[in-house]
Amino acid sequence: MTTTAATFDAAAAEASDGGPVVVPVALGDRSYDILIGDGLIGRVGALMAERLPGARAAIVTDANLAGLHLDALEAGLEAAGIASSAIVVAPGEASKSFPVFERVVDAVIGGRFERGDAVVALGGGVVGDLSGFVAGVVRRGMRFVQIPTSLLAQVDSSVGGKTGINVAHGKNLVGVFHQPDLVVADTAALDTLSERHFRAGYAEVAKYGLIDDAGFFAWLEANHGAVFAGGTARTAAIATSCRAKARVVAADERETGERALLNLGHTFGHALEAATGYSDRLVHGEAIAIGMVLAHDFSVRMNLASRDDADRVRAHFSTVGLPTRLADVPGDLPDADGLLKLIGQDKKVARGKLTFILTHGIGQAFIANDVPPSAVTDFLAEAAV
Amino acid sequence: MTTTAATFDAAAAEASDGGPVVVPVALGDRSYDILIGDGLIGRVGALMAERLPGARAAIVTDANLAGLHLDALEAGLEAAGIASSAIVVAPGEASKSFPVFERVVDAVIGGRFERGDAVVALGGGVVGDLSGFVAGVVRRGMRFVQIPTSLLAQVDSSVGGKTGINVAHGKNLVGVFHQPDLVVADTAALDTLSERHFRAGYAEVAKYGLIDDAGFFAWLEANHGAVFAGGTARTAAIATSCRAKARVVAADERETGERALLNLGHTFGHALEAATGYSDRLVHGEAIAIGMVLAHDFSVRMNLASRDDADRVRAHFSTVGLPTRLADVPGDLPDADGLLKLIGQDKKVARGKLTFILTHGIGQAFIANDVPPSAVTDFLAEAAV
Repeated sequence: MTTTAATFDAAAAEASDGGPVVVPVALGDRSYDILIGDGLIGRVGALMAERLPGARAAIVTDANLAGLHLDALEAGLEAAGIASSAIVVAPGEASKSFPVFERVVDAVIGGRFERGDAVVALGGGVVGDLSGFVAGVVRRGMRFVQIPTSLLAQVDSSVGGKTGINVAHGKNLVGVFHQPDLVVADTAALDTLSERHFRAGYAEVAKYGLIDDAGFFAWLEANHGAVFAGGTARTAAIATSCRAKARVVAADERETGERALLNLGHTFGHALEAATGYSDRLVHGEAIAIGMVLAHDFSVRMNLASRDDADRVRAHFSTVGLPTRLADVPGDLPDADGLLKLIGQDKKVARGKLTFILTHGIGQAFIANDVPPSAVTDFLAEAAV
Repeated sequence: MTTTAATFDAAAAEASDGGPVVVPVALGDRSYDILIGDGLIGRVGALMAERLPGARAAIVTDANLAGLHLDALEAGLEAAGIASSAIVVAPGEASKSFPVFERVVDAVIGGRFERGDAVVALGGGVVGDLSGFVAGVVRRGMRFVQIPTSLLAQVDSSVGGKTGINVAHGKNLVGVFHQPDLVVADTAALDTLSERHFRAGYAEVAKYGLIDDAGFFAWLEANHGAVFAGGTARTAAIATSCRAKARVVAADERETGERALLNLGHTFGHALEAATGYSDRLVHGEAIAIGMVLAHDFSVRMNLASRDDADRVRAHFSTVGLPTRLADVPGDLPDADGLLKLIGQDKKVARGKLTFILTHGIGQAFIANDVPPSAVTDFLAEAAV
């Protein structure tokens, strides 16, 4: 744990230089940097001029974020001599749809943006997933700059190149892998986030500890208050999360193996999101918080992990105010068979077999293929009590 | 020329073994084979079982091709134990549109095809471009098998991984690079092609000679009758074309350099297609036949190539019945300024500069950046006379 703790100190020190923390994502000729720091949105223009010379900016954002940050972004772009235009979509998951996708594609092409120009995503996961898909397909691939404004987007969806939209059959079933050229995470943008959405993003931060970094999880148990308060602890948590994800993505860009570890809690979580209609009843981070607790409980039941570790996970999530039980979901849920059916519809199904991310304990997650569906229904039937 | 001629003999000999000619496309972990031979559609099932074990088949085809070849394809798949379903779109360029794209995406997802399953394109360039884009985005990338049924698709659009649809602003402006896992070119399918469309595909065959293989062009001048008649000469011409394209694509998969040579004749040609509304007035191969003649004439005018070489190109295209002059296009065309405007809208524009593929003579094409627009309008004004 000492080694891991030292890493956090380094990250905090870097940030305290005044310059942004730089997290490189090593993907050969698709490598890029994630820059993390306070008040970076106004500096995106200068950063683009330095790193993507000559690129114009097709900004994609939503109506809420436009009101908060678009002026600062545009002023910085103009000061750097970068021509831009802004495409504003409606806030919310409904914008990850074919009609909105088509409208943004048309607007980018109609704006005469070329391959060397950049789609610039200013927003959370919805804006990032939608505009990354647009950047991936206009002229068969434009440059892409992400300015994630939610904690979830800063630590998860803006790292790794997954883009996509939803269709009637499910979420993110249509998209491409398209790596950004630059990610700029402005920690000041998180100050406008609701407590509920910050907490939801925090579930993904904790996930990196649970996957393979017990020291980071222990640090979060001790320092979550400082992370929620902002400042260097928050920046360090974000940088540690980005580094963890960057490591996994560099090793397995297209999720043919190890990258699936990032889905810890997501198989149960996606089923719960589907069961609640992807509504405000349960936002993504809340669903995977419950999913991660269930994954640990299920691992205990399968005699893979200790009860103590599973209890620590549930206790920590409770402490920060995240839901941890099926009973914490407002309203009715399907029964165990109904949930299993939703799990089977999840896209991470290989040739009809059930794949789960299970664990031997905190920081020891692994990919379990061929989990017997009956064990899952038995477990869910008990968990629902 | 002797070396090149020897290559054709080898190709013809391979084909005469009875087995298909195999053209490997070397793209690292995205490498695949093109199989060329007579009567292969019925063997696609066996080939898939051997090369993509376990993959189910989401067949995409058009109403015309379905009538001609779908039974044979489905029977072969069934005999090989491969589950399949067929999605039939309307014949013609109009199917390369957002609404049809969305419908096919929905049908593939609704059919519960997974990442390891294959979209199987049975058809010409339209079906291939559309279904390749679908395969590239469903679940962020499925397997893809192409069964090109037109000469144009066999020698051009099914090699190299370019996929896409059209939008109001232009053709192929939305798509991805998505390499197939297998291409099966059944030369028997060409027997149902109209003379006009065979000729149009032949323009792309001749293009490979004009780019960098003077020996192949000379062989075509001598043997075009046999290529049009079918048999081993036709197979050899197709295999040579596929090898030439595979070489270029392997060197420059995403068209950042040399691959642009494949656009010989396409800058003028696309402008003519746009000017004629992508209608039956001028099909793609006819447009690029005129475009290639213009590219040679323009090179002569720029003192880059000899008049003799340009005359040979025009003479050969005339001999096989392809159009070679602006005046050969039925109906009115825009004037030189109008055509230049259409050229500027072509997607192969880098930062506002005009890029053309010009030539020092037959088999000596090169990429010319920064061609002065005034030289183009002067040339087109004369060519229009």
